[in-house]
Amino acid sequence: MSQAAEVSTTGTSDFARKRREIIECAAEVFAERGFVAGTTKEIANRVGLSQPAIYHYVGSKEDLLTEIAMQVDRDMKAALEHGLAQGSTARDRLRGVISAFTAAVVENRLTFTVYYKELHSLQDSTRTKIAKDEREFVAGVAALVSELQDEGLFAKDMSTLVLTEALIGMVSWLHRWYRPSGPLDADEIAEHFISLVGV
Amino acid sequence: MSQAAEVSTTGTSDFARKRREIIECAAEVFAERGFVAGTTKEIANRVGLSQPAIYHYVGSKEDLLTEIAMQVDRDMKAALEHGLAQGSTARDRLRGVISAFTAAVVENRLTFTVYYKELHSLQDSTRTKIAKDEREFVAGVAALVSELQDEGLFAKDMSTLVLTEALIGMVSWLHRWYRPSGPLDADEIAEHFISLVGV
Repeated sequence: MSQAAEVSTTGTSDFARKRREIIECAAEVFAERGFVAGTTKEIANRVGLSQPAIYHYVGSKEDLLTEIAMQVDRDMKAALEHGLAQGSTARDRLRGVISAFTAAVVENRLTFTVYYKELHSLQDSTRTKIAKDEREFVAGVAALVSELQDEGLFAKDMSTLVLTEALIGMVSWLHRWYRPSGPLDADEIAEHFISLVGV
Repeated sequence: MSQAAEVSTTGTSDFARKRREIIECAAEVFAERGFVAGTTKEIANRVGLSQPAIYHYVGSKEDLLTEIAMQVDRDMKAALEHGLAQGSTARDRLRGVISAFTAAVVENRLTFTVYYKELHSLQDSTRTKIAKDEREFVAGVAALVSELQDEGLFAKDMSTLVLTEALIGMVSWLHRWYRPSGPLDADEIAEHFISLVGV
């Protein structure tokens, strides 16, 4: 379980575990059918609970989507914090961010899928908060990229934003092609990314 | 206008131009609100036509989505073909594919956005065809990556698929962050990608 997931499962452990299970099933249903077409009935069926139980543990369909988005929000924040705590050089820190972000997308592929597809379905206040947090994530990665440009690892005359979004895109795209049945785990995939961009 | 767009606008030029304009407005509406929430009424308003005119030029809301997806389908195919026709080395060809694919995503950012978000909303037969074509696109890029592994530009012991999806992800992600008001054009962004991965 990712660090971010840990954070989201505070409270009594049975209640927290049930919530977690419901949010995962909701992500599965919304990833397959989209938020509008997905129903709490289908989510309830998959998780083996009644619709009122879904409501009791998490809330409405909108609340389910908000929880999914908030989990991704926490995952991005945790990946950045985790990476920044790795090693003493900017290079180690960027490697750390790539590894932690890769692990988060692999672990929570479905919540990331719903997040990227359904941002427009969120309530305005949630969308505003999350968009701000995502900008901070991008800014955090950009600060590392900029340090590495100063150090000469990336060319100084290149756009920090384009390099940053290229790195984030490489990892984010995992949500679309990664399959748990594949031969490589998150660490191995992260090593590929790190090696491809030469950090 | 991209090569792929040229293909889609055969027929009398006024009719074709109008179709093109409607499909662009539809992509705008679906990208903002999602396919289910978007309405042909709003599309008609934006393009300055009546709903029956939308139907006359393209068809139903489902037909609009199919056209959007088919445009992306053609864009990917054209990017691969264009790239494969560039130069005599695998390196030139991969550069060509990255450049052409970057140009397509920049040019048709909104249709790519709708494609990536709404694949599940397509009719089964269209989704099956498009998924097959996308697999062929990935396989085409993978063949180039594999050649470059044989030549030693990419490490031989790395997974061809992961390298391929990393490259595709880097470019595809543009649909989410690229803004036409930004300082760099498609060619300059493609140069960043090419330089970052050292091809």
